[in-house]
Order: sequence, then structure tokens, then C-alpha cells
Amino acid sequence: MKYSSIIKTFAFILVFSPFAMAGHHSSNEHKSQTKYVTYSQIGNPADVLQVKTEASRALNKGEVRVQVLAAPINPSDVLQIAGNYGVDAVLPARPGSEGVGRVKEISSGVKSLKVGQLVLLASGSTWAEELVGPAEGFLPLPDLGPISAEVIEQLAMSAVNPLTALLMLTSFEDIEEGQWIAQSAANSAVGGYVIQLAKQRGIKTVNIVRREGLAEDLKAKGADVVLIDGPDLAKQIAIATDNAPIVLALDPVGGDTYGRLADSLGYGGTLVTYGVLSGKPATLNTGQVIFNDTRLRGFWLYKWYQTATMQDKQEAFGQVIPLIVNGTLKANIDSRFTVDQIEQAVTRAWEGGRNGKVLIVPSPLE
Amino acid sequence: MKYSSIIKTFAFILVFSPFAMAGHHSSNEHKSQTKYVTYSQIGNPADVLQVKTEASRALNKGEVRVQVLAAPINPSDVLQIAGNYGVDAVLPARPGSEGVGRVKEISSGVKSLKVGQLVLLASGSTWAEELVGPAEGFLPLPDLGPISAEVIEQLAMSAVNPLTALLMLTSFEDIEEGQWIAQSAANSAVGGYVIQLAKQRGIKTVNIVRREGLAEDLKAKGADVVLIDGPDLAKQIAIATDNAPIVLALDPVGGDTYGRLADSLGYGGTLVTYGVLSGKPATLNTGQVIFNDTRLRGFWLYKWYQTATMQDKQEAFGQVIPLIVNGTLKANIDSRFTVDQIEQAVTRAWEGGRNGKVLIVPSPLE
Repeated sequence: MKYSSIIKTFAFILVFSPFAMAGHHSSNEHKSQTKYVTYSQIGNPADVLQVKTEASRALNKGEVRVQVLAAPINPSDVLQIAGNYGVDAVLPARPGSEGVGRVKEISSGVKSLKVGQLVLLASGSTWAEELVGPAEGFLPLPDLGPISAEVIEQLAMSAVNPLTALLMLTSFEDIEEGQWIAQSAANSAVGGYVIQLAKQRGIKTVNIVRREGLAEDLKAKGADVVLIDGPDLAKQIAIATDNAPIVLALDPVGGDTYGRLADSLGYGGTLVTYGVLSGKPATLNTGQVIFNDTRLRGFWLYKWYQTATMQDKQEAFGQVIPLIVNGTLKANIDSRFTVDQIEQAVTRAWEGGRNGKVLIVPSPLE
Repeated sequence: MKYSSIIKTFAFILVFSPFAMAGHHSSNEHKSQTKYVTYSQIGNPADVLQVKTEASRALNKGEVRVQVLAAPINPSDVLQIAGNYGVDAVLPARPGSEGVGRVKEISSGVKSLKVGQLVLLASGSTWAEELVGPAEGFLPLPDLGPISAEVIEQLAMSAVNPLTALLMLTSFEDIEEGQWIAQSAANSAVGGYVIQLAKQRGIKTVNIVRREGLAEDLKAKGADVVLIDGPDLAKQIAIATDNAPIVLALDPVGGDTYGRLADSLGYGGTLVTYGVLSGKPATLNTGQVIFNDTRLRGFWLYKWYQTATMQDKQEAFGQVIPLIVNGTLKANIDSRFTVDQIEQAVTRAWEGGRNGKVLIVPSPLE
């Protein structure tokens, strides 16, 4: 295992279960005010999200206070607020599925964290200025030395998209160096991580996008081939790869793109769907599925977090965090908004034509 | 393994590779004439199939002469003649993929077969009155005692449809007694075998058909539920099974039926496609694939015969042959035609509204 040394270095304690919100009562011991995003009905995020202010409360035993440094808006966050996700939110809810923060205060009995330490926000509700909760809900990052604002922002995005990319690359097919994979929406954040992780493993990538002008950026990330989606996609792929078998295809688009990717696979190859950006049912040539032994699967990170063992999680994070810190894994950032600007932020996050993530950055990073 | 004793009884020597046709030259030693079906171009079977007559030839060393008793017309035969199959025929070709026959003559050196013995025709070209070829191309059936014409006809259909049903039931999911599966085109030959094999294992079946009037026959075979396909199929299935998870669905139809079956599966269930009777691309809700961890696969018996080990084949035949002989596994027969009547036979085989197989029966069975 070539990653074992990295894994040992980053043996996180990972507890990805939502922490109880019952303890979020206000308290007289703290005067300072803190802002957070919440919603009490399902709907268009720009309409239903509200910014509220609460007084910072004193810590209970075992709890810590963490200043949120940066938290992304992921498609899954927006879909859940809009009621189009596999699990419904329990209302009222505080959105935000990941982020990075710095420990500001710890209560007695907390041994795993220190004041000043950087942590991943592993228990949700991250679109906020401050989080208070049990220490187990925060994953200590190892001492990374002096760390730039840029890396902090990248770390804020480590728990969702890089893990999605890593797990899709490693869970379905045992892909060897020099083999080919294909993916649609290659200019998405997950798409970028797939390119970078594949490149690092010597796996070649066919990257499918829906508009011109993206090839240069994707090739800079390590893309081998960049193609524009269209009815002749399978043929385009065959030409670009000199008829190499495509062992794995990844599709967050659906609709006709799904069927085209299925038709592009080599014998016994796997197509993994992980999103429905087109909003359309997929089409599929089932004759090809029979004669080509095509395997069709879905990937849902939420379920992985529910079922993965501690060791699975340590291994996965142990692979992505060092690559984020050393700059190998990097997502484009489109724009940054404060907690107060949540309406603009989610509106921007749901617009087409972006080429990067929208981040919530409560206070300017030094 | 509850089938091990049966398997030992039926330890066939199975060699499912086409035997060389080079030896099919005519010979002066035999005066009698024999008829066979052939085609030298791809096209509508009723147009391109021809009946030819050749003189029976003397046997070469290691060869046997087998009288064909019965051979079915399977959809895969018709599709291959029409050029719509996963492998093309080498022209000129002699069609027919399975059947049963009786050994009429053996050459010196043949130890595995005796004159008078019943054999499965394992090397194709079965739409004929007589086959001559290496002994290895014929699978000896164990001594079954006095055997009726009815059982002989059922044995003629043992290598394709019952194996398809058995392998789809056993290769993708480990289904426990009391669990539910679903299938479309339940009134097909494969569908009937699926019902009977499932019943025998205590597996419950939801059987989907496209017209009224079939429920009684399917329930007599062991069907638990029979439903008419429609846009509300997933809901119908949920009601009929009291929301039991469907662990496996089998679909030879494609089109919208495929997507409806996918939507009917329980969490982590598998949909297997093995035909495209609708002639239409399938539709698929990929959001459901993601959130429900749906697995989509194809099944192609041809590939199984290419890759299965001798032991795999012995086990599979060892499971179906005894059930055919004792009447547990039985397909409906629609009609019987002689070799001369091949045009009528294939026309009938491709008509809708049948409720049974079309057989080639060269001479009346006693």
C-alpha cells in the first residue's frame, strides 16, 4: 500500500454524526453575538434561508467552541434545502455540510483538541460564524506549520468533493496505471479532483464538458482529453483514446449523457451516476448492457459516511488531506460571501457558467 | 450444497463449442437424404432461411450420427439471423442453438455414447433432421427409463431458457427464502422457468405481463402476484407485496418497463436486463439509482457458455435436468413444425400473442 505512510500520519478520529442541537440554548455568561444561517421550510434556497443572530453560550463539559473560517456551498446542500435530496432535513435546520475552523475555547475534559488548532467541521451546520458542540464533532488537523489562506479554503472543501472523487475512483473498479476513465461535467469541483487523483495514479482521463473554453484549465489540472458532449460522444471518445477500453465512467449529468457514457465503456466497464444536473431521466441502450456486460451503479457520499468504518474514513482522509495541503488537489473558487450574504451566495452557487466553488467566509482570512 | 447429489448424478461432459463443419462433405457410402435449414445472408428469417437436402455421409473416426428429435426456436436464434445479436453468424450458417436427439450410429473410438442414447445437442445447427459430428458435441443424458414425448420436447429446451432463468436467479443476488423478486414478460419461456425455480426455492415472484388473461396460467406455475405493466407499476408492486423490498428484477423488455422495474427495487437491489423485446431505449431515474444504491447489470447466456468452467456447467445442468424430467420445470409449447415448414415456424415464433415456444420436430415423436 503506497499510501500507508501518509495514512499513519493522518490518523484522524472521525465521527461524522450530527451532534445534538439540544445544547444550543443561549446563556448569560456570554455577551458576544454570533450569526448563523437557518431555514424552517423547504423551498428555493434564496427564499427560505434566513440569517439569525444568537448570543454565544457557555460551553458544557466536553464541548468546544470553534470559529468557522470557511465553508463551501455544495450542490447537495442546495438540493436538500430545495427538497430534492435523498434524505429530508429535520426542520428547523442549519445548513452547511463541511468546512474548516479554528478552536477558540475548550471545556474541561477535552483532551483531543487545543485552543488555536485547525479542525474540519464534521457535524454540519457550517454556514455560521461559530459552532459549539462536543469535541468529537471536530476533526483535528495535524500541525501543518504556517498555513496560507488559500490552503485553509481548500481544506474547507475536503470532506465532500475530494472524497467523492477518491471513492468513485477506487470503489468500483481496480484501475491500473495507463488505463482510461471518462467523466461528464469534468469542470465541476468533483471533476477537477477526479482529474488530479487520476493523474497522480497514472490513470488517463477523458473529460466531457458542455461548452467551449474549458480545455486549457482542465489540461492544466492534468486532463488527457477534453471533449464537448454531443450525440457522437461514444465515437469521439473512441477516436480520442485510439479505441482504448474505458474501464470506468462517472456521470453527474444524467439524461442522454448517461446513455452516451454507457455506450462508451469497454467490455465489463462500470458507469457510476452521482448526480442529475440535467434534471432529466437517463436513456440507456440495454442491448449494449447485455452484450458488453456493462455495470451501472450509483454513488452517494452520505451513505458512505453512514456505513464506512473508522478505518475506511481514516484511510480516505489520509489520502486526500496531504494532497490538499501540498497543492496536488485543488478546486477553483468562484467567489466568497459572508454569512450575512447567504442569499447572494446560494443564488451564485446555483447559476450555470461558473467555474469554481462558492464559499462562505465569515471573516477575511489572514 | 443441497444440489450436490443431483450434480453427481448428472456429471455431463460439456463442450459447448461449435464443431467443425469441414467434415460435412457428402459421401457415397450413404444413400439416404437428410434435410437441414441454412442461410447465406442476414435478413428477415422468413425470407433468408432455406431448406436444403444433403446425402447422409459416412462417419469419420470419433464422430457420431444423431437423429434430431426436437429443437426450439429461441428469440436469440431469430435475432442472430436478422443481424440484431451480439455476435454475427459466420455465413453460410446453419441455425438452431439447442435441442435433443438420439444417437443412431457411432464410429470407432467413441466411448462416451451408445446407439439409442438420448443426447442434448450442444453444438448448434439443430434445425435439421440429422447431425453428424464429434461425439464431444453431444451431451449424454443419463438413463431416464421410459420417457414420454412430452419430456423429450421439454429436454430439447433445457440448454438456453432454463439455464438463463437459473443463472439470473443465482448469479447476482443471494436471495433468501421468503424474499421477493419481480420480472417483466413473465409469460415468456424464461419467465415461466423463473417462476418455477423461484417457487422451488421459496422465493416470491411479482410477474408483470402486458395483457389480461395470463394470470391463471402463471399462478398455476407458482406465481405469487401477476400485474399488468403500466406507468404506476412501482406503486402496484408496492401494494401487492405490502412494501416488501424487491431484491432482484429481471427485464427482457427495456423501454419504460426497465425504468419502472428499477424504481420498484428495494435498497441495494439489482435489475438484470436480458433482452430488448420493446425495441426501445430504456429510461432510468438516476436519482433513484444514487439514493437507493440500485445495481444494474446485463445477462447474456452466450458469454456464460464461453467463460463458465466445466464444473459451473455441470452444476447448472445438474440443477435443471432433473427438474425438467420430473415435471417441475416445464415450458408451454405453442406449435410444432417440421424442418420443411421452417418459414411458417419462424413467422409464428416472431408473432406477438403466443403463449409458448415454437418447436422444430422433424418426425412425429412416439
